[in-house]
Amino acid sequence: MKQFIYVDNAATTKLDIDAFEAMKPYLLEEYGNASQPYSFARKPKQALKEARAIIAQCINADPEEIFFTSGGTESDNWAIKGSAFSDTQKRAIITSQIEHHAILRSCEDIEKMGYPVAYLPVTKEGIVTAEALESVITPTTRLVSVMLANNEIGTIEPINELCKIAHQNGALFHTDAVQAVGHIQIDVKKLGVDLLSASAHKFNGPKGIGFLYIKKGTPITSYTSGGAQEFGMRAGTENFASIVGMAVALKKNCDTITENTRHIEAMESQLLDGLSSAGLDFVRNGSNERVPGNISLSFKNADGEALLHRLDLMGICVSTGAACDTVNTRVSHVLNAIGLKQEYSNGTIRITLSASNTQENVTAIISALRIILLQGRI
Amino acid sequence: MKQFIYVDNAATTKLDIDAFEAMKPYLLEEYGNASQPYSFARKPKQALKEARAIIAQCINADPEEIFFTSGGTESDNWAIKGSAFSDTQKRAIITSQIEHHAILRSCEDIEKMGYPVAYLPVTKEGIVTAEALESVITPTTRLVSVMLANNEIGTIEPINELCKIAHQNGALFHTDAVQAVGHIQIDVKKLGVDLLSASAHKFNGPKGIGFLYIKKGTPITSYTSGGAQEFGMRAGTENFASIVGMAVALKKNCDTITENTRHIEAMESQLLDGLSSAGLDFVRNGSNERVPGNISLSFKNADGEALLHRLDLMGICVSTGAACDTVNTRVSHVLNAIGLKQEYSNGTIRITLSASNTQENVTAIISALRIILLQGRI
Repeated sequence: MKQFIYVDNAATTKLDIDAFEAMKPYLLEEYGNASQPYSFARKPKQALKEARAIIAQCINADPEEIFFTSGGTESDNWAIKGSAFSDTQKRAIITSQIEHHAILRSCEDIEKMGYPVAYLPVTKEGIVTAEALESVITPTTRLVSVMLANNEIGTIEPINELCKIAHQNGALFHTDAVQAVGHIQIDVKKLGVDLLSASAHKFNGPKGIGFLYIKKGTPITSYTSGGAQEFGMRAGTENFASIVGMAVALKKNCDTITENTRHIEAMESQLLDGLSSAGLDFVRNGSNERVPGNISLSFKNADGEALLHRLDLMGICVSTGAACDTVNTRVSHVLNAIGLKQEYSNGTIRITLSASNTQENVTAIISALRIILLQGRI
Repeated sequence: MKQFIYVDNAATTKLDIDAFEAMKPYLLEEYGNASQPYSFARKPKQALKEARAIIAQCINADPEEIFFTSGGTESDNWAIKGSAFSDTQKRAIITSQIEHHAILRSCEDIEKMGYPVAYLPVTKEGIVTAEALESVITPTTRLVSVMLANNEIGTIEPINELCKIAHQNGALFHTDAVQAVGHIQIDVKKLGVDLLSASAHKFNGPKGIGFLYIKKGTPITSYTSGGAQEFGMRAGTENFASIVGMAVALKKNCDTITENTRHIEAMESQLLDGLSSAGLDFVRNGSNERVPGNISLSFKNADGEALLHRLDLMGICVSTGAACDTVNTRVSHVLNAIGLKQEYSNGTIRITLSASNTQENVTAIISALRIILLQGRI
């Protein structure tokens, strides 16, 4: 049988089996609507409360600061649009050129409605600098939104520093932490952010669920309106089975971050050393401060899409860039923003390792890339 | 052991076991991101395609007209806001006074942004009349949104007639069909609507998933922006496990509508006859055209909330009104709109039967209501 090596963990992750087992009773037996005032709603209501507390603890927030959404994309849309719509005077938004499309398209949506948006450039490591932010922020800035870790190249942004500048100028700060939550230690108080987005399926939770952290007192409008769920801020019958699964997965990931990171970083070194020893001409994109396991590789004069397909035929799942951008085969906005030379950018693949990958997986990947790139065959 | 009788099926329904079994492989093994271009995404992609085709067929739509959302509330928000934002000239919205809060609050959101909204009154049966609509519709009307079946009293609205008036005046027509899909035969072409909302957990699918039908060519903006999922109209990694569960549940419900309706209507008659024979003074709210199983009962000089709690102690789950309105104990906006006298409205409970309820359940409910209302004890 063909080997199967999944190293596209930034696109999605395998649902943790304990998370699935925790979801099952809420899918099958305890299905009562958590908003109803009868005893059949008691267990779902309690499960929701416990999940909220667990998640809050994982990022050092209060439970009332966690608002469940349908995923990272909704959280990002809410953060951008809910902030913009909450103030009629301060209307300007600042974000970066390397944000996820959930942020960029939300910004385009509000631009069409007359809100001014500035897109900050980044360094060649993909870093949004304090200087860049300081040069465009004004008293009319409502919100600064910069991601915690980039999905394509893994760069961790200097959120705390950027956040201070935003606050000094009377602006709110949001961070899209979809690639970071469950992978690096997150402390919203140390970061200083007002808003933070997360998505369960990026940390071994189920798809279709996520959350937005909203610091107490942050002015933001409701994005999806209706019933009184989520403290009146996000309407819709609570998807408590998935919420429970998300909490179990996040806690498990957070409890094992140190050993997971050690294991993943060892595999990273193994991969990079192996490729260098093979004599391949490539650059690794991103900064030294990266989310563990995110390895964006640009091979000189190669074709990233062809690489992906050849690896796929060999049973190895990698990505050319963001999962959400794959209908387009052109060079991604992130690689353009870091100014990568075209002889390299066209040959980019993203390998994202998880704790469940092995040294044997990495050996197989090195071997596959050698065969494809040096011998030109599968 | 205390009996357990669940008759709050308008709030939520039990997940169909076949739907759960169909979801399981997509939760556990086939977890690849459906938007990725490698073979591990093939099965999720195929499952999505099949689910879309099944759902489309259930309402006589084309697959490309089905857009998956996180549920009925999101579908409703999208229909209202996406229509309003898609035209700068025609800005007025018309809806009814008895809509679900997902519609009413979405309308309030856009009212705050300067869009004019009219709320149509209803008859004492809860019907939105053609005359009411004709008296307020103008060439500036962008959208008319009237629900297919009311969640509190079950009244089925004359959608086809209202829809024709909307179209004659150059307006779009949306219907919130959350209480109807899977319970009565739906044919979007016969109804004539441009937009239709549905929610899986109301028809034995999982929570956290739903869809918006958008007739081909209908001008509407994206509500949740980002990646290219859902034909570029609704971003976010596809929750295909839940989508598959929704499709299985909907098809099963649609295939058995005739026999289910017969069974449910027999139980309805049994309940009403039993309560009348017991000499209880009550009215049944709604019109003769109702969604099967929705029985809104107003008992003279009774207290609906106390009734709910006493029934709960006897192991019977009913509702006082909409699940989303239960943080408020006051008389609902629907009962106010139909002009129910206060001596009755305060004593309202909603019993919503499903095909899995039995004649024995109904006998137990009659007996419980007799004990509570006539003997004043449990």
